[in-house]
Amino acid sequence: MASARVAPAGFSYGRPPLSASEKPRRTVVVRAEAVNPGIRKTEDKVVDSVVITELNKPLTAYCRCWRSGTFPLCDGSHVKHNKATGDNVGPLLVKKQ
Amino acid sequence: MASARVAPAGFSYGRPPLSASEKPRRTVVVRAEAVNPGIRKTEDKVVDSVVITELNKPLTAYCRCWRSGTFPLCDGSHVKHNKATGDNVGPLLVKKQ
Ligand code: FES
Ligand code: FES
Repeated sequence: MASARVAPAGFSYGRPPLSASEKPRRTVVVRAEAVNPGIRKTEDKVVDSVVITELNKPLTAYCRCWRSGTFPLCDGSHVKHNKATGDNVGPLLVKKQ
Repeated sequence: MASARVAPAGFSYGRPPLSASEKPRRTVVVRAEAVNPGIRKTEDKVVDSVVITELNKPLTAYCRCWRSGTFPLCDGSHVKHNKATGDNVGPLLVKKQ
């Protein structure tokens, strides 16, 4: 779609105007993405606490992908997220021993 | 940039061809985003373990924004990430008491 490759005068799509020697390419500015799409969005900052004396299982997995249905715990949703996006995130494991 | 709004025959930008009554708009397909832009990308899945008997501080903050320079620990980088993206992520605090 060659007609989309060069911005009209006065418009810039995130890079300076092309020089004659440069291969033109279509550039779309994508704003840096939020990591958390939906967990506790009424909170300014989602911080959770684990008091280790209250842990009763030998191992507890905590979510770092922000996709868990049992956040702050990991429910395995990182697997689907990694597959869908090519990402490589996983939980933090808290171990009693 | 009206010339970019309609795909040439044979191309689709993520939606069916526009009907006459529909307001044309430019659509860019954005793939779901990875959460982790750069931490340990050679690993299939980044999982970390905390053995609580080895914790020596009363409180340790673990990163869940994947922007920390001291990952898996939180170094406060979530503040910049939240400001830049409108996100609301924060660390997991592990407390000895
Ligand atoms: S569900 Fe989020 S890290 Fe497992
Ligand atoms: S630096 Fe990532 S949560 Fe604080």
